[in-house]
Formats: sequence, structure tokens, C-alpha cells
Amino acid sequence: MSSIEMIEAAATRLAEHARRPAILTSPFLDEIAGRGVLIKPECLQHTGSFKFRGAWSALTGIEPSARARGVLAYSSGNHAQGIAMAAQRLNTNAVIVMPSDAPKLKIENTRALGAEVVLYERGSQAREEIGNRLSRERGLTLIRPFDEPLVIAGQGTCGLEIGNQAPQLGVGLGDVLVPCGGGGLTAGIALALERHAPGMRVRPVEPEGYDDVARSLASGQRETNTSEAGGLCDAILTPSPGEVTFPILQRLCGPGITVTEEEVLHAMAIAFLRLKLVVEPGGAVALAAALFHPQEFEGNAVVVVLSGGNADPEVFRTALEKYA
Amino acid sequence: MSSIEMIEAAATRLAEHARRPAILTSPFLDEIAGRGVLIKPECLQHTGSFKFRGAWSALTGIEPSARARGVLAYSSGNHAQGIAMAAQRLNTNAVIVMPSDAPKLKIENTRALGAEVVLYERGSQAREEIGNRLSRERGLTLIRPFDEPLVIAGQGTCGLEIGNQAPQLGVGLGDVLVPCGGGGLTAGIALALERHAPGMRVRPVEPEGYDDVARSLASGQRETNTSEAGGLCDAILTPSPGEVTFPILQRLCGPGITVTEEEVLHAMAIAFLRLKLVVEPGGAVALAAALFHPQEFEGNAVVVVLSGGNADPEVFRTALEKYA
Repeated sequence: MSSIEMIEAAATRLAEHARRPAILTSPFLDEIAGRGVLIKPECLQHTGSFKFRGAWSALTGIEPSARARGVLAYSSGNHAQGIAMAAQRLNTNAVIVMPSDAPKLKIENTRALGAEVVLYERGSQAREEIGNRLSRERGLTLIRPFDEPLVIAGQGTCGLEIGNQAPQLGVGLGDVLVPCGGGGLTAGIALALERHAPGMRVRPVEPEGYDDVARSLASGQRETNTSEAGGLCDAILTPSPGEVTFPILQRLCGPGITVTEEEVLHAMAIAFLRLKLVVEPGGAVALAAALFHPQEFEGNAVVVVLSGGNADPEVFRTALEKYA
Repeated sequence: MSSIEMIEAAATRLAEHARRPAILTSPFLDEIAGRGVLIKPECLQHTGSFKFRGAWSALTGIEPSARARGVLAYSSGNHAQGIAMAAQRLNTNAVIVMPSDAPKLKIENTRALGAEVVLYERGSQAREEIGNRLSRERGLTLIRPFDEPLVIAGQGTCGLEIGNQAPQLGVGLGDVLVPCGGGGLTAGIALALERHAPGMRVRPVEPEGYDDVARSLASGQRETNTSEAGGLCDAILTPSPGEVTFPILQRLCGPGITVTEEEVLHAMAIAFLRLKLVVEPGGAVALAAALFHPQEFEGNAVVVVLSGGNADPEVFRTALEKYA
């Protein structure tokens, strides 16, 4: 069971190890959005995404004997890098199962951080099966990317910081827009805000065509995307909300918001121009929602999580060419 | 006269208004440089460069009656944006004299921040004459971009933060690499470190062909660049070190370091990949020195100031195409 107590315990374990990115603002963003926009730039977290939080939380939360045997993760990339760096800093081994079509940079970075990478074909092989088999064979502890309470607790520390930082900037009410794949970050932030900033409500944001969470929230049951490959926003393309995360999303989140891939590229260009930040497509969906879907929420201000910055250089160049 | 007391006073005036960017690190940078690299990312400062510090210091340091009449600045762009935003937040007027070949983005941003922009031809007109005339005609107070003690004091607050943050990360000895144009930031940081972190020494960094400061430090007198237009690193292309700044640089800085434009583009790509930061060419020279000139300094760690992030999108795309 995920709980606020687990998030607070994770925050203690992360205190000297994770970054706590300060909130950024820009009058240019406020003008486009028509309201105050508070940016939580998790692209500045270690390994370039919020995933380091959950990874550190999980690796420091499991039994020391299990940690010493090593961990295993399956991931489209950002979870992989988070686990790899956490394992390296904790002097243990990480085996990462990654789709063969993951951005080359993410695969290389994961290896450079000391992890062993096992590639699989997305679509034709179930990564869970591969992960379970490796886990059995080598005595590794599987760290799921989102359906794992220790991971959700780590991601929730981002919510604790938002609940502390946003009111200092005069924002204690309003929507918090979170890029949403399996829902680990979204659920963690929602749990943290429920206790620490109850006037703030999480809104999951997804790309068009991969809106399983928005549809699940609308229907009241876990819906599935027909495809999980091929989209621009690779970091958040999961088949459906998690078993552990969905009940939390259902209880605490407002309706999901869906943005187009062109809006995502445009948001990446605006983050380049106005924030001097590199944001990857999946990390930019919430900014796209704030800038281009202002009618979907109320209030004078909105908080936007930029969840990752591991952008493919070609994709980034396309965003600049089209919109900068 | 510039002094540590002026810097500390400026820090008090800036306390609630400027950002204090946290130092960033990356194992990938350390590996390239062969030592620890501590990044002070002033591209995340308001308006995308350290110049907001000096601007705020100057506008809050002059007489209230002068501030109410308005201020004037001549600038290649970043000083302009800093002055414009400071003036807007202090509810006064700013007139900015800018070269007509400044990046379009910088001209537009300056106007969008509420300032009046007056363009001049670089090379054919002396910006100081235009500035002095406008100043006389309209009763505006000229805020020089670097040869102004209040501005140097503001930039020096960046040095106070480095002197506080770097030792917390275990670095109290070593070189601090600073992108250097007229020398305002370099002099300010040097003065701050002299008092607060005397084991750290500032090294000015410039692009090849525009190394007036390095040559001036070597010869012991203010040397002049033959050209001040046409280089990649527009933000730091000044004809010579300042009258006020040079004696400070001479007393406190180690030898200057010169980098090539290709090294600058490469450093920009590495900042994209490893730090998720947008850095402009002039802001990336110190990172280029740390990564590609490791033999020019000693010790286990180096501090690098990324002084600005207002990169032209075409130039940024070129950097990614070549080196990302």
C-alpha cells in the first residue's frame, strides 16, 4: 500500500542524494497561458528525469541483502537510467531490460552508468516475462517502473516539494499538471498533495492516441492503448494505468488532459526559448497542456511538471526548426 | 570603487528577487574533463543570464529620484534584458541601445519586457556616444554593462553563491572558469571569492580571436580586439577589458584561457545531452575550457560558470547537428 508515510520516509532517504529543483517562472509563459505558470523542472534531476527519485527510494527501501544481490528493471529508458545511477552509487549491480527501439542515447547512458542492458523487441515480447525470468535465474530484485509502492513513494517526494514550494510563491490552490505514463509520478504527487496541499489537484496529461489514463478515469476502469510503440512521447507510452497506481489516480485526480504531438514540439521549443531547459517530448506534455489548453482548467495559476529532459537530438532539432 | 562590501550589500537587495541557481554535476562531464566539474548555471537566472543580477543591483542602488526618471543601457542583448526586466519590476522606464545585428530573439525579448529599443550599427557608430546623448536629452541614468561598480557588485553575488555552494560539495580549492567580455562578472566573482573562498582563483575564458582580456593580463595593460563583430560568442565580444574591471582582474585572476568556436559548439551539445540546459555560445566558453583544455589548470575539481542561455535557435541546431 502506498501512503503519505511512505513518501515522507522516502524523502528522508533521498534528502542528501536527490536534487530538489527550484520552481521556475517566466512572464512569457504566463502571457501565453493566460495565468501564472509554475514550472517544476525534473529534467534537472539526476539522470535527467524524476525517475532517479523512485529508483533511489526503492534501492534504499529493500532489504540490504537483496540490494547486495542486485536489482533488475524493465524500462523505456528513464527508469533504467535512474536505477543504474542509484545502483552505481549504492555499489550494487543493475540489469536493465530495455526495448530495442529506445533512444540510443538512453541505452548508451544506461550502460555508461554501469548497468548491464538486455534488449527486447517491443510488441513481440512481454517485458514482464523477460524480467521475471532474469529475476528468478539470478536472484535479482525486480524494481517495477511504476506499480511498486517504494517507487511511487520516491516519485511522491516531488509532490512534497511542490506542496512546499508553490505556496511560497503564493500558489496554494489550483491544478498540478503531470505527464502520465503508468502513473507512478502522478500517483505519488497526488498522495503528497492530498496531505500537504489539499487545495491542489493533480491532472494527468497524455499525448493524443495514448490516452489510456484519461479514458480510464472517465470510464472508471483500467483501459488499454491499442499501440504502445511509435509515438513521439516514448517515455510515457505504457499500455494502461497500473494496478497499484490507478486506484490512487481515481480517488485523487481530476480529469485527464490530452495534447497533440505538434503541441508537444511547440512546448519543447518554448521551454528552450523561455526557460533554457531541454525537455523531452514525454516530459513536455504538461507544459503543452498549460500553454495550449487553458480552457481545460480554472484558476489564476497552474503548476507544470517537466518530468524529463532526455530528448533525442534529432527530435529536439525538429522542435526548434518548426517552432523556435 | 568596487568592494566586497558593495557585493554583500547587493546580495541583500537581490535576496528576494534573483534566483540562486544550485550547482549541478554530471559523472559524464567529470569523465570528459578528468576531474570534478561543478556547474553554476546562470542560464537559469531571470532573463536567461547573470545580467539580471547587475541590473537589479544598479537599479536598486541608484537614487530613487533617478530611478523614477528612468534608465538607459547599451548592450549586445543580455544586459538589455536584465535592465528591462529589472525596470519593469521596479515600475520605471528603460531605454536600451542595441546593435542592429544582435540576435533577433534578444531584441524582441527586450521589447516584450517593456523597454524601448534604439538600434545602432555596430562598428560604424560608437554606442557610448549614442548612450550619452540620450542620457543627457531625457534625464535617464546610464547603466553601463560592466564598468559600473553597482553592476560589478550585482554580478559578484554569483561569486558569493559559488563561495558558499562549492565548499558544501567539497570543493574549496581550485579554478573558477568564467566567460569574460568586459569583465563585470569576472571581476565581481573574483572580489567575492577573495574574501569568502580565498583558495579559489578566477580564470577568464574567451573565444579565439577575441582574447583581449587574456592578452591584457599577459601584457599588463588593456589590449584591444581588432574586431568586435562577427564572432559566434556575441554576448562576450567587447573591444577591451573595462577601466574599472581590469585592475581587479589583474590583481585577482589567473591567466586567461582561449577556446575555439568549434569547442564552444561542442560544449553546447554536451550541456544539452548531460545537463539538459540551453547555453548560448558566449555562455559556454568556460565549459569548453573545462572539457577540452584540462591541461591548462590543476587540481581535482573546477567550477564552471554557464553565464547565459539566450542561444539563437539556428546556432543551437548547428551545435546539435555537429556534436550531439
